[in-house]
Amino acid sequence: MTRYQAPKSLAVLLRARMHPDPVASGPPPAPAQAPDPDPAAPPAASVRHWLHASVSASSPASAALDRFSDGYRSLDRGGRREILRSLVADYDVPRARVRDLMRQYMSVAAAGGEEHPGAAGEEEGSGGSASALYRMERGLREALRPKYAVFLEAMNAQPGGLKLLAIIRADLLGLLGEDNSPSLRALDGYLKEKLVTWLSPAALTLHQITWDDPASLLEKIVAYEAVHPIRNLIDLKRRLGVGRRCFGYFHPAIPGEPLIFIEVALLKDTATSIQEVLWDDPPTPECEARCALFYSISSTQPGLSGINLGKFLLKRVIDMLTRDMPSVQIFATLSPIPGFMQWLLAKLAYQIKLAEVELQDGNLSEGASSTFREFILLPEEERMIHDAVEQVDGKSEIELLQNILKSSQWVKSDKLSAALKSPLMRLCARYLAREKKRGKALDAVANFHLQNGAMIERINWMADQSEKGIQQSGGIMVNYVYRLENIEEYALSYLGTGLVHTSPSLFQYLEPMDT
Amino acid sequence: MTRYQAPKSLAVLLRARMHPDPVASGPPPAPAQAPDPDPAAPPAASVRHWLHASVSASSPASAALDRFSDGYRSLDRGGRREILRSLVADYDVPRARVRDLMRQYMSVAAAGGEEHPGAAGEEEGSGGSASALYRMERGLREALRPKYAVFLEAMNAQPGGLKLLAIIRADLLGLLGEDNSPSLRALDGYLKEKLVTWLSPAALTLHQITWDDPASLLEKIVAYEAVHPIRNLIDLKRRLGVGRRCFGYFHPAIPGEPLIFIEVALLKDTATSIQEVLWDDPPTPECEARCALFYSISSTQPGLSGINLGKFLLKRVIDMLTRDMPSVQIFATLSPIPGFMQWLLAKLAYQIKLAEVELQDGNLSEGASSTFREFILLPEEERMIHDAVEQVDGKSEIELLQNILKSSQWVKSDKLSAALKSPLMRLCARYLAREKKRGKALDAVANFHLQNGAMIERINWMADQSEKGIQQSGGIMVNYVYRLENIEEYALSYLGTGLVHTSPSLFQYLEPMDT
Repeated sequence: MTRYQAPKSLAVLLRARMHPDPVASGPPPAPAQAPDPDPAAPPAASVRHWLHASVSASSPASAALDRFSDGYRSLDRGGRREILRSLVADYDVPRARVRDLMRQYMSVAAAGGEEHPGAAGEEEGSGGSASALYRMERGLREALRPKYAVFLEAMNAQPGGLKLLAIIRADLLGLLGEDNSPSLRALDGYLKEKLVTWLSPAALTLHQITWDDPASLLEKIVAYEAVHPIRNLIDLKRRLGVGRRCFGYFHPAIPGEPLIFIEVALLKDTATSIQEVLWDDPPTPECEARCALFYSISSTQPGLSGINLGKFLLKRVIDMLTRDMPSVQIFATLSPIPGFMQWLLAKLAYQIKLAEVELQDGNLSEGASSTFREFILLPEEERMIHDAVEQVDGKSEIELLQNILKSSQWVKSDKLSAALKSPLMRLCARYLAREKKRGKALDAVANFHLQNGAMIERINWMADQSEKGIQQSGGIMVNYVYRLENIEEYALSYLGTGLVHTSPSLFQYLEPMDT
Repeated sequence: MTRYQAPKSLAVLLRARMHPDPVASGPPPAPAQAPDPDPAAPPAASVRHWLHASVSASSPASAALDRFSDGYRSLDRGGRREILRSLVADYDVPRARVRDLMRQYMSVAAAGGEEHPGAAGEEEGSGGSASALYRMERGLREALRPKYAVFLEAMNAQPGGLKLLAIIRADLLGLLGEDNSPSLRALDGYLKEKLVTWLSPAALTLHQITWDDPASLLEKIVAYEAVHPIRNLIDLKRRLGVGRRCFGYFHPAIPGEPLIFIEVALLKDTATSIQEVLWDDPPTPECEARCALFYSISSTQPGLSGINLGKFLLKRVIDMLTRDMPSVQIFATLSPIPGFMQWLLAKLAYQIKLAEVELQDGNLSEGASSTFREFILLPEEERMIHDAVEQVDGKSEIELLQNILKSSQWVKSDKLSAALKSPLMRLCARYLAREKKRGKALDAVANFHLQNGAMIERINWMADQSEKGIQQSGGIMVNYVYRLENIEEYALSYLGTGLVHTSPSLFQYLEPMDT
């Protein structure tokens, strides 16, 4: 009895599962979700009334905004969509006014005509016309704003308003999935632009979340942890304890709830599997840590999607750790590759389809489809897969691979694992470093870290053996590394030309770039 | 020896004067002020280089912004002005591009022509043109922004950037006083607009400042208290102690320094003089307080001039006190009338001038100037002033009044005070409730409270007998009252029509309104 023993009831509580099913945990409880219709709630028409009252007052009355806010929250999905549609239909850009102002501007700009009214002729005479030009430009900037701009600004200034706007944007993103009309897209673009301004890093506070924080806050960390679900209180306590850090970004208007948070492990070296991060026992003494490993980053507001808060959070956390822990020299991540398996399976299915078509047409007209044929597997890999499978049944190796990957049972077989390692690692490196969509990395997590100035350091086999890890990426995880001296340069070259920086350890998997 | 006695040295410290001269204390040490030129500091040309590097990078490099920031702070006034001028000259609105975009827009808007592209025809066909319209409007909004917009946005996102922008604006306001050119005015307008967004109340945190706060914060309260200078530590401690509150508005990007703060006394009833607020002994027990009296509100950043943070601060403080102290029913101010004496002396001087002109021209052509003549004093008031003065020397009563008011010695004479009370109170009521400039109250403090939804409750004779109080307003102070049920209505009617709400107690001083 030398160690402190928690009373039995506490021990049970600490070990109790946080999620009904910790492995296949669904999306976190989304507070943005529209509630079930409440018979006592106001109908959409009455909420629209408060919208109208808010928009039309020269300076929107905060009572009307509050009523709108309460009303909107109580509406069901249909009611909310009605409001969104009326926002864009009734409070659009005042185009007649815009055209009038443009005509005036063109005549003044053509007469005075100067490109730089402030540069040369700012003596009394032309000062008047320069003044008019600036005034008209200001007027035009204002007229070109949709009329709902005033409503959005006023709502943001209202207590609880920012949260409501995040809910509205989440609803809007849902609606856009079904009705991608230009006016709704314009509302989304405008609202997103405003949210970027309001959530400027200058307005956000970095807070280290610890076991001393209120339960109401810790509960949110459990609910929103999107990468590696927190299993029980021991797991949570561990992630906030020795050798670990958890930092959240808070906005004064949304108290008690981080907009985004990041989990860090302080290690001797860059970890190669998530198991050793989540369950290393005992943790590395902090004075021996040389690596700060970012192993999870989760945002809590679906309505802030596309607003890169993570970039600034990472930067602030790296700055802080650099200052507070001079022994930490390596800033790396151990990241999931959420799109790898989906991409690979789609590729396999497509190749199988092509092969079928070729077979039907006979070998005669093979030119047409064979331009799209790829040799996904190397001959050596084909042989290994072939040898590892018990019942081949005349299937091609690609079909065999597809079959194997459809379930995650293959990890339990040493033979299958050994046969798959080489092709999966090679294809994964290619997926991460070469596959692009509109010039950006196809994988969302890769795109996130690359645009923030990281490089791809290493890919790790069997790094996440959870069901989710196997399904997403065949269990492979990737280390991105942030080198302080290169962050800005890498971010700029990636954003400018799509250049992906990789360390030499990845070259073994990659063919020389096609140009 | 029943009471605790502070050691003698502490007692001396507590009583030591905070300001060299507590009465005529000058402006607080303005951190925005340009420093003396430092020979080791970079010249303006090198700061301009960093400005250029920040503006021209597609995504401004934070290193360049930091260098600019350090460089700008170390420049003297001349160097800073050079930077401001080059900001507006080199990074203005790209007018050629604006004109191009406008021509395109006009042709599309004329062809498609719809006022509401989202309303009727959003089927596939016209969806494309609606889409183009929204895209062009977005492009135009962006093109109409001056090129320095990107720099300002990026600086705001930078640590310490918001503070630098406030310094830049303070410098700009100083420069505008000498060179009111349209391009500099446009920069000020744009920067102010952005600051309003960044300093939205949603981004500000309300904090009650107490004696437990860090000395570095309390020091700033002493430095920035603009209304009733804090004399010594006892005075400061008193303002943060029982029966008193001090609330500050903080922004995460400017830590440890309120942007604005307000001082509140909890009293049995609305105070009629500042002496009883600052030196009532002992204070009212808080459970007996029925009135929350706002007796000082000070902003700390000259560069945020014109951005009404006070309005939201007042609203939040009233909300908080309403919730926490249900016995408090009255929310009132005891406010200075900073412009009264200046206005009155200008009026007297003008009338004296007119009288002189009339005298020179003889009584013949009296019509011309007499249209501008006013009867400032009532006959009864003229008689009282005449009787109270020892040496009349054939002067008119208006000249006598001017002479008396030129120094503040009159308050020491009971006879003069008694003679001046009636005209000064009457003229002060008129000044507060009737004198306008562009439809708003001429007095800046009156305008502030009226636009926030207060009404004029009462004016108080000999309410501020400090040298500053006598010089500003003949010692008169005013109570504005915020009635919760009328705040929004009064604010809207004042902003809309300039209507000033006054309580019946003021009617005795006012003539019926001319219409």
